[in-house]
Amino acid sequence: MPQPKPDVDRIFHALGDATRRALMEKLSDGSMSVSKLAEPLSISLAAVVQHLQVLEECGLVRTEKTGRVRTCRIEPTGLDAAAEWISARRSRWEQRLDLLGGLLAKEEDSSFL
Amino acid sequence: MPQPKPDVDRIFHALGDATRRALMEKLSDGSMSVSKLAEPLSISLAAVVQHLQVLEECGLVRTEKTGRVRTCRIEPTGLDAAAEWISARRSRWEQRLDLLGGLLAKEEDSSFL
Repeated sequence: MPQPKPDVDRIFHALGDATRRALMEKLSDGSMSVSKLAEPLSISLAAVVQHLQVLEECGLVRTEKTGRVRTCRIEPTGLDAAAEWISARRSRWEQRLDLLGGLLAKEEDSSFL
Repeated sequence: MPQPKPDVDRIFHALGDATRRALMEKLSDGSMSVSKLAEPLSISLAAVVQHLQVLEECGLVRTEKTGRVRTCRIEPTGLDAAAEWISARRSRWEQRLDLLGGLLAKEEDSSFL
């Protein structure tokens, strides 16, 4: 069995947390500072920074510090690996369903003979 | 900020483990018994059963016991929620990129005036 790419682990792990997904949803509307991003959340700024670090480490978000302000933005290609894994699984199942459909149709045809 | 559906948490968490993804990849080729599924993996049967439980609890896999044999199969709609979340984020970013492209084109046009 081929070993899946290690970064897919980290991406799915990062997405398995509602606060981290909420941060990504908020950043989908545009880049913003860490403090602005933390404002509507009922968790500490330190916790938000930790979540952002997880998102940054697996390439879902980028942050940049200018003076005292750290600005965060979505990395548009960050979800590609996760999307590709899901899409590959789904297309494999669809192929199998098509194959099954074909076999059933064949069986039905031969029952009319 | 709307609270994301709780099951998306569990699905992404379940997918954040290479062994669980490997089990799903194997099941994509067809349903099979737990022992057959465990065969090529270098982990104990008990560990495979635990991983399958995680996959079953979040609706990615279904198992059925007939006599002493437990058969596992993929739940084809199991990845829908995860795929929808990723797809919604990507289309939001694409919209933003289109908007940005439009604004830049407009700026370029006006600089020619």
